[in-house]
Amino acid sequence: MTLAPWRSPLARALHRNRSLVYARYFQLATVRAEGRPANRTVVFRGFLDNTNQLKIITDARSEKAEQIEQNAWSEACWYFPNTREQFRLLGQLTLVGEHCSDDSLLKARARSWQELSDAARVQFAWSPPGAPREDTGFDSLPPDPATPLSHFCLLLLDPMQVDHLELKGDPQNRLIYSFADSLGWSMQAVNP
Amino acid sequence: MTLAPWRSPLARALHRNRSLVYARYFQLATVRAEGRPANRTVVFRGFLDNTNQLKIITDARSEKAEQIEQNAWSEACWYFPNTREQFRLLGQLTLVGEHCSDDSLLKARARSWQELSDAARVQFAWSPPGAPREDTGFDSLPPDPATPLSHFCLLLLDPMQVDHLELKGDPQNRLIYSFADSLGWSMQAVNP
Repeated sequence: MTLAPWRSPLARALHRNRSLVYARYFQLATVRAEGRPANRTVVFRGFLDNTNQLKIITDARSEKAEQIEQNAWSEACWYFPNTREQFRLLGQLTLVGEHCSDDSLLKARARSWQELSDAARVQFAWSPPGAPREDTGFDSLPPDPATPLSHFCLLLLDPMQVDHLELKGDPQNRLIYSFADSLGWSMQAVNP
Repeated sequence: MTLAPWRSPLARALHRNRSLVYARYFQLATVRAEGRPANRTVVFRGFLDNTNQLKIITDARSEKAEQIEQNAWSEACWYFPNTREQFRLLGQLTLVGEHCSDDSLLKARARSWQELSDAARVQFAWSPPGAPREDTGFDSLPPDPATPLSHFCLLLLDPMQVDHLELKGDPQNRLIYSFADSLGWSMQAVNP
């Protein structure tokens, strides 16, 4: 596979903003069952090997897991403060849970679980997210790094349109990358 | 009108993150005509006087203006890096354009226009956003602060649910504020 053309400006942005831990966070929008949008901050966990798919992790018990089953479309909005640029990545999400039938994705899920810190892993042993607050259920021992807990999910975003805006130009620069099955990736400069 | 109970923690977050210009930016999700989400960074412009509505500005020629006419629901996701907390604000958007029939909103639109810098105002004189890039159309003189350009819009977000997550706790703290016409605002602590 070849790297999509937006990978290089995105890698540059990650590098130039590496002093900020939170430059690896972005906002992921999905659509709720009743047609209203949902939006939350997630952590970028790198790209799935040999693909242009962004890795995120989530809990199968979270609202977003349910939303994705109804509507897999998502737009990630990623703002980089140091370089004052924004990437909007529109594409479909794939939720890789314990019953995934694709063996290589199951292996990627296990790897993502191993790569987490104990502090991140233990959150998957907590009481169900979003349920009325319980006083107990948060004091678990760190789970085994070798075996993902059952509701741990790897979440993949496969962009088909990427809108890159650089605020620093005068006027600003904005470039839209679009993927079509027949043509691959194409680019179009647009007005900011 | 009384301040909604989430106004006080939000004001505190704004204050504690005031050293970061970009702590006044948040990500606004809407739904596109075909049911896919859209997500972009916007600038918080304060609250509309005597309301709990967040002020944003936008261009009537932008895609989001079109999306809002089809589906007014939005979720804003606002992450504060210094204090490591997130507010998710779900509600409906109101687009206040030049033909708005509410006189007080028209006045608020004119005030928001006046409060902008020349650099921000001139962007509304640029060529249509999102159209194929033109080499000209970006060299306008700063528009008159007294008269908003016709496609300048004030955009209002009226939250009816606010989900506040503090990452610093162990376990983290998460509180959901919900509005019901009959009951006003209520609060529920939930599992993070």
